[in-house]
Amino acid sequence: MKTVTVRYVNKKPKLNNPILIEGLPGIGNVGKLAVEHLIESINAKKFAEIYSKDFPPQVFINPDGTIKLVNNEFYYFKAKKKNQKNLILLTGDYQGLSSQGQYELVESILDVIEDLGVKQMYTLGGYGLGYEIKHPKVLFATTDKHLVKNLKKYGAIFKKNEPGGGIIGASGLLLGLGKLRGFEGACFMGETPGYLVDPKSAKAVLKILTKITNITVDLSRLEEKAKEIEYISQQLSEMEGMTKDKPDELGYIG
Amino acid sequence: MKTVTVRYVNKKPKLNNPILIEGLPGIGNVGKLAVEHLIESINAKKFAEIYSKDFPPQVFINPDGTIKLVNNEFYYFKAKKKNQKNLILLTGDYQGLSSQGQYELVESILDVIEDLGVKQMYTLGGYGLGYEIKHPKVLFATTDKHLVKNLKKYGAIFKKNEPGGGIIGASGLLLGLGKLRGFEGACFMGETPGYLVDPKSAKAVLKILTKITNITVDLSRLEEKAKEIEYISQQLSEMEGMTKDKPDELGYIG
Amino acid sequence: MKTVTVRYVNKKPKLNNPILIEGLPGIGNVGKLAVEHLIESINAKKFAEIYSKDFPPQVFINPDGTIKLVNNEFYYFKAKKKNQKNLILLTGDYQGLSSQGQYELVESILDVIEDLGVKQMYTLGGYGLGYEIKHPKVLFATTDKHLVKNLKKYGAIFKKNEPGGGIIGASGLLLGLGKLRGFEGACFMGETPGYLVDPKSAKAVLKILTKITNITVDLSRLEEKAKEIEYISQQLSEMEGMTKDKPDELGYIG
Amino acid sequence: MKTVTVRYVNKKPKLNNPILIEGLPGIGNVGKLAVEHLIESINAKKFAEIYSKDFPPQVFINPDGTIKLVNNEFYYFKAKKKNQKNLILLTGDYQGLSSQGQYELVESILDVIEDLGVKQMYTLGGYGLGYEIKHPKVLFATTDKHLVKNLKKYGAIFKKNEPGGGIIGASGLLLGLGKLRGFEGACFMGETPGYLVDPKSAKAVLKILTKITNITVDLSRLEEKAKEIEYISQQLSEMEGMTKDKPDELGYIG
Repeated sequence: MKTVTVRYVNKKPKLNNPILIEGLPGIGNVGKLAVEHLIESINAKKFAEIYSKDFPPQVFINPDGTIKLVNNEFYYFKAKKKNQKNLILLTGDYQGLSSQGQYELVESILDVIEDLGVKQMYTLGGYGLGYEIKHPKVLFATTDKHLVKNLKKYGAIFKKNEPGGGIIGASGLLLGLGKLRGFEGACFMGETPGYLVDPKSAKAVLKILTKITNITVDLSRLEEKAKEIEYISQQLSEMEGMTKDKPDELGYIG
Repeated sequence: MKTVTVRYVNKKPKLNNPILIEGLPGIGNVGKLAVEHLIESINAKKFAEIYSKDFPPQVFINPDGTIKLVNNEFYYFKAKKKNQKNLILLTGDYQGLSSQGQYELVESILDVIEDLGVKQMYTLGGYGLGYEIKHPKVLFATTDKHLVKNLKKYGAIFKKNEPGGGIIGASGLLLGLGKLRGFEGACFMGETPGYLVDPKSAKAVLKILTKITNITVDLSRLEEKAKEIEYISQQLSEMEGMTKDKPDELGYIG
Repeated sequence: MKTVTVRYVNKKPKLNNPILIEGLPGIGNVGKLAVEHLIESINAKKFAEIYSKDFPPQVFINPDGTIKLVNNEFYYFKAKKKNQKNLILLTGDYQGLSSQGQYELVESILDVIEDLGVKQMYTLGGYGLGYEIKHPKVLFATTDKHLVKNLKKYGAIFKKNEPGGGIIGASGLLLGLGKLRGFEGACFMGETPGYLVDPKSAKAVLKILTKITNITVDLSRLEEKAKEIEYISQQLSEMEGMTKDKPDELGYIG
Repeated sequence: MKTVTVRYVNKKPKLNNPILIEGLPGIGNVGKLAVEHLIESINAKKFAEIYSKDFPPQVFINPDGTIKLVNNEFYYFKAKKKNQKNLILLTGDYQGLSSQGQYELVESILDVIEDLGVKQMYTLGGYGLGYEIKHPKVLFATTDKHLVKNLKKYGAIFKKNEPGGGIIGASGLLLGLGKLRGFEGACFMGETPGYLVDPKSAKAVLKILTKITNITVDLSRLEEKAKEIEYISQQLSEMEGMTKDKPDELGYIG
């Protein structure tokens, strides 16, 4: 039995040399936030849904009381200007739960984009630091050496041996399995504490992406969200601080 | 290898426009209690069993010493009056253990009911509150917007953004995967503390269901069971109270 | 891909109306001990091996330095006297690790014995009590009601609603899936504390089995093993006792 | 769906009577270290890669900023002298994550080497002792009895009933599943504390292997690595010692 089903809800877009932009849930939800913001900003149009038996057996409830089976969704954007790129965008509720589910999901995504003529992809994610950071940098890794120099121009940086554990999940697998099929691409990883969803890191990633694609995106809403999260984060660390202020009475217990 | 096997133990019922009522084990066992009570009350007839390799490898022992392989079971009820609905009822010992098992079980259930001409379904479950409640309300979610207004008439309520985590398990998946196949339906979730089996919540759900189907059901046995559980629940919280009465000697340890 | 492979290491036995006796690892290893002892006593001959991808990826090392891939093994015994039964015996290193693996293993076992003309089976296991017991009784459950009365004659007992959780694993599944294919049979469960391997319980189970099959088995070696285990068990509880003797110094810590 | 894919990156080597040498990650990474060192020393050439859906969904990042999908890799070595053996070498980033994944990976490896005319294999691993050891010995186990005497000549030792738990993972499974297909071979297990990667144990294993294959390998780099690890190990145990030096103040807490 196949674990993944692709369902076209609109006819397949016919685009010249489209690029895939992927952002699924992950550390700090950086990739998902970035791609969702991009989809909204450029008013990209949904054309397909992916369902997997390796997603949780779950429906979400829409504000109008109807249900929505968890999935991944494909959108497209047709370039408005000559120097802009045509885009296929992928985001979703979940990544595959198991290792096998991840591989099968990514193979299905590659089937879809291969069929649409995609040759290049940018996958977006977070790079979990475990501590707060004022100005998140964006690390990257590529399928091919000649892309490395090229991408440094856009402000993404490359730190030798980072991330040490490589890239885990769909963002890495799309490049890894894609490379075997002849796709080119890169993964952009925004630095993030990793505790909470991180719109600031998503903004940093999007900034680079918009330079590459020549697509202007209003980032003000991400900035607002970033301020909200910053506020929540401060509240949380203050609460933690308060707990830490009176350890003496309890300290001898453990 | 297929994980699910459907076994007909009687010939397929031929019913005009039957509705599926599903209640499998879950939070407070609300759905299962409700459907089991309904089956008994209306004397519905078993016609099929579902076995899955994703159920536990387990047999139960019947009171007469014979064994019963864990399964799900289909029953049917032929309407006795003109305004009543014909019913297909589904209950069982388990839901699928894994995510994939859940999806495959639900696809098999949909195969069966599609074949029987079912177009509409009501799935029953519990909505875990984590605290005691005197008068459990019944929340709902639907496959289609036009059903929302319709179902409010019967006393089910709709709270925006609840349940926040959506619906997990067969009750949600039947609607989610069913919707993709063109089924219509709703999930009714009885509020329940969620600690113990909850006949009171099951009764609340059944009350709404009987209005929709025009089938009268004697709910007195559920009320009796509800009183028993209430008694057990009180005993438990008294025991807990007693433990909490003498914390002083131990308090400084942890 | 199939998870289970059956490998014949000798030609298939041709036996009149053979009975399957199964004893795989489980609580107290009661079933495995019983069948292994039976195989040795009656000098049963191995004719097939079962390998499963759901067994651990493990080889054992034989005393002579060669390896043995973990498996299940089939043996047969040809009746020597008129009133004796012909036997197919199954034991092994493991049961399937996952639920699905268990179902597929048992379906393969049923395929093998169906092909050999088996119609009846006795599966052996332990019934974990969680406390020591002097004279373990043997509980049973059957596929068919008419067997219940019959088996009580041999000294096996039937306690209503026990085991409460039914029978989990191959012993239950062979009856459950077997019944759907028309096999008849019973599971004999020797009472056992369940902490250690339990030759005493295995002996109790074998006693009943030898009456049913009219096959005499020397149980003295099981008795010896039982004494060894009893000794180990006493040592362990003494050690525990010693620890419990001086709780005062430590008691206030937790 | 198949879980394993073999990808030839060079044409299949044509070798007379080649022997497989396997070393995948495991206890002390003994096998992987040994085979990687061997590959480097003899300048073996990569000819195939194995990808599995049961490896983690992960890419590593190369020093040049490009990604590498986790895999296993085959190399070959053509004998330079008459008394040397032709070799097929296997190493990699991971073993299969699940039991089923392990079996399918090993079956695929056996398919590859059967196709290349391999009839004999040596699998390398560590034997975890849980304590430091000055001069690690090398234990072994074989597919066939006649190999036992033969291999003792090379300095490998055989301790009855060790390892007690047999051999878990690819090193054992290659012998176990291989034996069923008619392969001959042995597993060499270098004694190792098992806490850290253990080049000293890898060296001990390689020493025996070079005698068998008549291939001389410079072991000085493994010796250097062994010294580094020894230094780290000392640092760690000193740190532990320091912690243990002041238990008095904390001792009464737990």
